[in-house]
Amino acid sequence: MAGNSFGHIFRTVTWGESHGPAIGCVVEGVPPRLSLAEADLQHWLDRRRPGQSRFTTQRQEPDQVRILSGVFEGQTTGAPIGLQIDNVDQRSRDYGDIAEKYRPGHADYTYDAKYGIRDHRGGGRASARETAMRVAAGGIARVVLNALVEDGVGIRGAMVQMGPQQIDRSRWEWDAVEDNPFWCPDRQAAQAWEGYLNDIRKRGSSIGGVVEVVASNVPAGLGAPAYDKLDADLAKAMMSINAVKAVEIGAGLTAAALTGEENADEMRMVDGGVSFQSNNAGGVLGGISTGQDIVVRFAVKPTSSILTPRRTVTRRGEDTEIKTRGRHDPCVGIRAVPVGEAMMALVLADHLLRQRAQCGL
Amino acid sequence: MAGNSFGHIFRTVTWGESHGPAIGCVVEGVPPRLSLAEADLQHWLDRRRPGQSRFTTQRQEPDQVRILSGVFEGQTTGAPIGLQIDNVDQRSRDYGDIAEKYRPGHADYTYDAKYGIRDHRGGGRASARETAMRVAAGGIARVVLNALVEDGVGIRGAMVQMGPQQIDRSRWEWDAVEDNPFWCPDRQAAQAWEGYLNDIRKRGSSIGGVVEVVASNVPAGLGAPAYDKLDADLAKAMMSINAVKAVEIGAGLTAAALTGEENADEMRMVDGGVSFQSNNAGGVLGGISTGQDIVVRFAVKPTSSILTPRRTVTRRGEDTEIKTRGRHDPCVGIRAVPVGEAMMALVLADHLLRQRAQCGL
Amino acid sequence: MAGNSFGHIFRTVTWGESHGPAIGCVVEGVPPRLSLAEADLQHWLDRRRPGQSRFTTQRQEPDQVRILSGVFEGQTTGAPIGLQIDNVDQRSRDYGDIAEKYRPGHADYTYDAKYGIRDHRGGGRASARETAMRVAAGGIARVVLNALVEDGVGIRGAMVQMGPQQIDRSRWEWDAVEDNPFWCPDRQAAQAWEGYLNDIRKRGSSIGGVVEVVASNVPAGLGAPAYDKLDADLAKAMMSINAVKAVEIGAGLTAAALTGEENADEMRMVDGGVSFQSNNAGGVLGGISTGQDIVVRFAVKPTSSILTPRRTVTRRGEDTEIKTRGRHDPCVGIRAVPVGEAMMALVLADHLLRQRAQCGL
Amino acid sequence: MAGNSFGHIFRTVTWGESHGPAIGCVVEGVPPRLSLAEADLQHWLDRRRPGQSRFTTQRQEPDQVRILSGVFEGQTTGAPIGLQIDNVDQRSRDYGDIAEKYRPGHADYTYDAKYGIRDHRGGGRASARETAMRVAAGGIARVVLNALVEDGVGIRGAMVQMGPQQIDRSRWEWDAVEDNPFWCPDRQAAQAWEGYLNDIRKRGSSIGGVVEVVASNVPAGLGAPAYDKLDADLAKAMMSINAVKAVEIGAGLTAAALTGEENADEMRMVDGGVSFQSNNAGGVLGGISTGQDIVVRFAVKPTSSILTPRRTVTRRGEDTEIKTRGRHDPCVGIRAVPVGEAMMALVLADHLLRQRAQCGL
Repeated sequence: MAGNSFGHIFRTVTWGESHGPAIGCVVEGVPPRLSLAEADLQHWLDRRRPGQSRFTTQRQEPDQVRILSGVFEGQTTGAPIGLQIDNVDQRSRDYGDIAEKYRPGHADYTYDAKYGIRDHRGGGRASARETAMRVAAGGIARVVLNALVEDGVGIRGAMVQMGPQQIDRSRWEWDAVEDNPFWCPDRQAAQAWEGYLNDIRKRGSSIGGVVEVVASNVPAGLGAPAYDKLDADLAKAMMSINAVKAVEIGAGLTAAALTGEENADEMRMVDGGVSFQSNNAGGVLGGISTGQDIVVRFAVKPTSSILTPRRTVTRRGEDTEIKTRGRHDPCVGIRAVPVGEAMMALVLADHLLRQRAQCGL
Repeated sequence: MAGNSFGHIFRTVTWGESHGPAIGCVVEGVPPRLSLAEADLQHWLDRRRPGQSRFTTQRQEPDQVRILSGVFEGQTTGAPIGLQIDNVDQRSRDYGDIAEKYRPGHADYTYDAKYGIRDHRGGGRASARETAMRVAAGGIARVVLNALVEDGVGIRGAMVQMGPQQIDRSRWEWDAVEDNPFWCPDRQAAQAWEGYLNDIRKRGSSIGGVVEVVASNVPAGLGAPAYDKLDADLAKAMMSINAVKAVEIGAGLTAAALTGEENADEMRMVDGGVSFQSNNAGGVLGGISTGQDIVVRFAVKPTSSILTPRRTVTRRGEDTEIKTRGRHDPCVGIRAVPVGEAMMALVLADHLLRQRAQCGL
Repeated sequence: MAGNSFGHIFRTVTWGESHGPAIGCVVEGVPPRLSLAEADLQHWLDRRRPGQSRFTTQRQEPDQVRILSGVFEGQTTGAPIGLQIDNVDQRSRDYGDIAEKYRPGHADYTYDAKYGIRDHRGGGRASARETAMRVAAGGIARVVLNALVEDGVGIRGAMVQMGPQQIDRSRWEWDAVEDNPFWCPDRQAAQAWEGYLNDIRKRGSSIGGVVEVVASNVPAGLGAPAYDKLDADLAKAMMSINAVKAVEIGAGLTAAALTGEENADEMRMVDGGVSFQSNNAGGVLGGISTGQDIVVRFAVKPTSSILTPRRTVTRRGEDTEIKTRGRHDPCVGIRAVPVGEAMMALVLADHLLRQRAQCGL
Repeated sequence: MAGNSFGHIFRTVTWGESHGPAIGCVVEGVPPRLSLAEADLQHWLDRRRPGQSRFTTQRQEPDQVRILSGVFEGQTTGAPIGLQIDNVDQRSRDYGDIAEKYRPGHADYTYDAKYGIRDHRGGGRASARETAMRVAAGGIARVVLNALVEDGVGIRGAMVQMGPQQIDRSRWEWDAVEDNPFWCPDRQAAQAWEGYLNDIRKRGSSIGGVVEVVASNVPAGLGAPAYDKLDADLAKAMMSINAVKAVEIGAGLTAAALTGEENADEMRMVDGGVSFQSNNAGGVLGGISTGQDIVVRFAVKPTSSILTPRRTVTRRGEDTEIKTRGRHDPCVGIRAVPVGEAMMALVLADHLLRQRAQCGL
């Protein structure tokens, strides 16, 4: 109700501010007797961790996750899993200015409007730091998916557009994604982006981007009609990531310009199973998975912290200007890639358990 | 959990299939002592009702809503409001073919995959008929918003793109929306669309579209951080509408190509209040409303029922073809306009009550 | 949130007032492909129906339930099941006096305190009429339990105390329960109660009672630790029935006076399975079912509508007296028996599906 | 869904096992700008802490609670409050025997039946240690109640029966409660209990008890009709406390033996307000508070850990005996007093915020 939890059966609630002593989460609904170690989660956290290249914020956080409950002798027990990461590099001195001035594009003004009080040290609860716990919880969700679905569920994210620069989809290589600091699946584009983003960074500016997340080997039948459609839950999941302004499923926005003939994903029997001839649906029909790849894209706005002064107002209602010093990412979209993967995992794990409840799987 | 309810405090659960005896919903959480009559809801249902022009399905449903509980002597009592609409024009004979064949783009295959059983008479629960109850519940949500927010909350929808044809935003007139069968705010575009869609219709084809919904006079402070961000809930709400494939807030997808300087909505004090100089945010920052217009757009795919035969398979796993006879809309996006408005109302009413719970409003 | 729903996965929401046009409910989470007909539910409603003897209210309601959705060709589809019963014998003229005067023991005063408005025709939402929908939904829950648990789950209720008169447990016969108007398992007690209650009735007085509900063949492992303990959910379920003032599990209140040695339910292996030597636990340990009978008892206060005038106040704050005319039950505990059975079924069905979700059953 | 959370708007989720590194909870829905310090919570934890007399377990836990989030400069921010207590005295060596043998009366057997795995070090998640977090969260709930209700809400608990020995209610003094190790309001009874319980303790036996919790100055109008009745939620809350087997509201079980005339709480106008002449209702009518004291009682079974050997079975299905060594409480009811108070606070805080949401308070 206060908005800090996600999921129904596989349920995560997160807590913590960017500049408090720690952040954490509680993951409920994890089936018992699954192997789980801190290293399983650390793997994903390390991918998300800032400070890995000049293109992400230089905040240095080891982001060591600890499992505080719900695991006994290396196996889940069915009890809630408490996770925690200490905040070690807080530098709250950097943020003195924003106690009084609302940063455009940040949640400073709206938090004050809502709560009448605001932890101004670095965004408090609105900080992207909260997403570290999503990635950790997403790691548990992957364990659940891989345990319950034969051959496991693959979830991979990639950056497909940086600023106005799109990738060439004919050059898509999943292997390339790990080889560049942008999670870009097109090696050629990745090279171009390097110079492009360096310019942005040097100017103290920022740029948006588009991220695509693909889940493969998802069983047909996950989701629900009406409100908790699988794609509706994915839309919420992705839009809940900081700075996201649009979410697309399958053909997405381009579906608006298609005719019914063009858009129809025709079906054929292949090797005794149903095979779709295209995937405009993005793997979801009527809110329920088709068995094809689930394909979601989301647009991330440019980082709001920039070095060019912007006009704004103070808490006291005076016109002023602000220039956001301190560490920041020139393209926060980059760091949204592992977060998008995690949200995909959270949604799928929850719907998998829901399907098990209602239809027995 | 089974996906038929929406909202937390202002909560709607719908039931009913397109070809059963009736559809209905229960609306919980409505504050007491608000004036409410069936006519207040009928007004919105009449806008949504099919059969009003040659551009929407010829199914003739009077869609008379009845209030069965929760209202006493013209006032809400705080008890759950039961709403019901009888299905009077079901013609289930039209749908015989689809008992065996999966219609591409429809939920036939996925319902079978999920439930192992399917009410094949016209889509059952996946039918757009379910959205009639959203519109009715949305009417109650509007009553709540108007009662609790000074000067009321305005919620208006418009179609801003049909197939590849976009409107010219400089010609936007809200008054125009009611004057054409497309809810198009650009009179010139509306005229062009008439011929365009007529062609589509005559060919038995269909086309997608883009709908924009705008809420004005929404108080700053509605929403929540982390997962239940106002825009995340809006994304889910809109993506849960049949055939929607993309949702945008404010600048939406175009935000990806902006720099931080371009994207920043600067603030000034005007007449003692905070005034934003632009609205790329679409009225939401950090998941919380800014007090500006809330601007949401969503893309609707083309109707999947078309007269050109498409390749598909049968329930028994045989290759076949299907040509979807029967009534259908050449552009379902048109009918999604009042539904989008209703979903906006449902989300805002819920968050308004949540804000009242947590912050006392 | 507004309190009209029960359960998490197997979820029921009810609506309707005693003097509106109808009452109804929506049951979500029912697994697909279970046989379900209106007659399955009518069977239980007929047991609950008032007007069957001089010991229950003479309100004559056929209570014909209709299934409006979620069932196709005799089988559940997984879609929400809408149920409805028309109110045919409302006689709202009987209730004129209570529009102004608060009836002691009824919810008149508290509804006004909460909502500032009250449907005074017969208790509105607080009327025991609402429990008809619990019984109908409970019928669906029984179908689910019997389909998913081998050999089915037996749920039976009995009245074990009327006023100060207790049964002799050594004379307990389940068969006797159906043979007297009190659902009394002790034939001798039933005979004594007849005269006793007739006296109460003639005086226009009323008396309380105690109901016991027993579920047999419940699998071990249902429930949850901490807050959603099986017995905690049962306590809520039973206390939510109108006029209930106490709930006991197993040894209940008498457990307070036992020593640890006396209270321990020892275990032995019998025929390869665990066998408990006693059932002070009432079939629940640590909030989770043991496989023994689940035994719940609840106390029902005497009907508040009596013919002896009682002192009270008016809405306007004047001292007055009230004598509640109209139909009433001298012992509402009688009619609570089928309702208690239904609540047991709702709790067990929900926990069965929850167990299926978390542990795969 | 997995059972570790309580409440809807004021919502607590707990995590942690008795022998893990720590236990904790997350409290959501706390209104912003309330003063809150660790000392406010420590006060209540110190009351609950074991090891304070020979009548409670000798486990020595300082139970120092830390607030890890949601409070900024001494004030709540509206963000989730993360609380944590390190486990410092775990002595898991004491529990070796129970890895194989099921302790009668404990949740060992049922956890294995449910999860197929069990953290056998001291009860794991089923340990009463979990209740420390309820007391801490209850401390926050009290802050909310006192901030939002004029003159604050008083919540006090007392032990009113130990084994078969009841107090004399005519000697009830709230001041006495703090003066004896049993929270007994009857000084004379407290003295008698001392010898009585000492005998029990020396024999290695245990005994049950009855606890009463009273909330005063609760506004009329809290609660909900149908399922989330205030008393239904209280019944669940109390029954969810370890070892509780019965819950009563107001006259409770004795209401079954009353006539309608005896049970009616008559009303008079006194000083311009409604005054009830008795409180058989326990402060709740139709599930909604009347403004009178809310009176709840619950029975606690005797501690299952006793020194007399009891017959049981092993995980492998062999008959055996068990004698539970290690620390234990001869009467766990004593420690349930502060927990019962905390649960009352949690229920009232949640319903207060729900009332604020629906009726604007």
